[in-house]
Amino acid sequence: MLKLYGAPGACSIIPHIALEEAVADYSVHYVDYAGGENRTPDFLAISPLGRVPVLMTEQGPLTENPAILSYIAMLYPGAGLAPLDDPFAFARVQAFNLFIASNIHTAFRQILFADTFADGEAAAAALRAKVPALADRYFAIIERGLADGRRFVHGDAFTISDIYLFAYANYLRFGDRGDAARLPLILAHRARVRERAAVGRVLAAEGLAEAWMD
Amino acid sequence: MLKLYGAPGACSIIPHIALEEAVADYSVHYVDYAGGENRTPDFLAISPLGRVPVLMTEQGPLTENPAILSYIAMLYPGAGLAPLDDPFAFARVQAFNLFIASNIHTAFRQILFADTFADGEAAAAALRAKVPALADRYFAIIERGLADGRRFVHGDAFTISDIYLFAYANYLRFGDRGDAARLPLILAHRARVRERAAVGRVLAAEGLAEAWMD
Repeated sequence: MLKLYGAPGACSIIPHIALEEAVADYSVHYVDYAGGENRTPDFLAISPLGRVPVLMTEQGPLTENPAILSYIAMLYPGAGLAPLDDPFAFARVQAFNLFIASNIHTAFRQILFADTFADGEAAAAALRAKVPALADRYFAIIERGLADGRRFVHGDAFTISDIYLFAYANYLRFGDRGDAARLPLILAHRARVRERAAVGRVLAAEGLAEAWMD
Repeated sequence: MLKLYGAPGACSIIPHIALEEAVADYSVHYVDYAGGENRTPDFLAISPLGRVPVLMTEQGPLTENPAILSYIAMLYPGAGLAPLDDPFAFARVQAFNLFIASNIHTAFRQILFADTFADGEAAAAALRAKVPALADRYFAIIERGLADGRRFVHGDAFTISDIYLFAYANYLRFGDRGDAARLPLILAHRARVRERAAVGRVLAAEGLAEAWMD
């Protein structure tokens, strides 16, 4: 059985939704950050940087969200979460997820984890101050990709990229991570994904059903 | 035919080596950064952030290095560049590449592209100053992974992860991106990869044969 290590509302919600969409046999363990579980030798042995998500499989642990997502898609091909038989289409799915991981996720980390970029209060303030401009730039590229009326990121079929975008678009509600008013197509996409039964079950399980509804 | 957009010595050397290892039918176009080609509408249409590498395929452009690498591995399965038939092993390859992309690559960007994190000279200096500590932390995790005597990142078989590590380990020669003296296994790995015929051909083609030999 698969075991997902996560934290409510963290980006571990992305593989959580993927597992639920795949009707996988899995359990979730919420890492006790307040109690320092993320800094214990046991946890660092499976996640050297002390981060979630980690997906524990029968063959060992997996880290890095896009890799975990592709693994879930490959393990449950019947769920149709990625175009596994088309190398180009599969690479586009991967590239989209990586675009968020490398750019939007990195930018958002500048708010709460400024010390993984630079030391000192002044640098932390400068890192936080830049986030809205960065988020606006990156989200605008995704918004343009939705302009042809497609229902989902890669067309008419729901994929792991839709889960990825859904989770990061949800952070727009905080107001300090990009201007949601400029992103009507992303907001409509978010509402569309929010309606999925699997998404509703995961939001309820993580205690986020109301918070993530705006 | 595949066409790789790159720049000599940039991280586009990673898919360049992968294409050469795969004996692919490809050409390379070096983007004229000095002449502003990376900011032209034509280039931004295939790489919205104006970055290399981009791999132009018959189906369209691909960005994001780990996605490009997996695509090359899937397009040329005979080259054995990734364990395509084992979802867990393939995910581990992906996760390793993403660990470098999300952490080491992001840290290195703080040197030359500080303005994609924060504005101002003081913030830029703080971002640069933190890079060696970050690189030491991230490379140390990779070094520990090589401690069981394995020849390559994932064992005895050469994969796209070895190309990824080779390229980033080469940056250690600059002296401002981590302490190479603490990383004997990574240096030995680098020398091992450097000996490969395909790697030698790519270094020569990019005009780096001497610079990358230490």
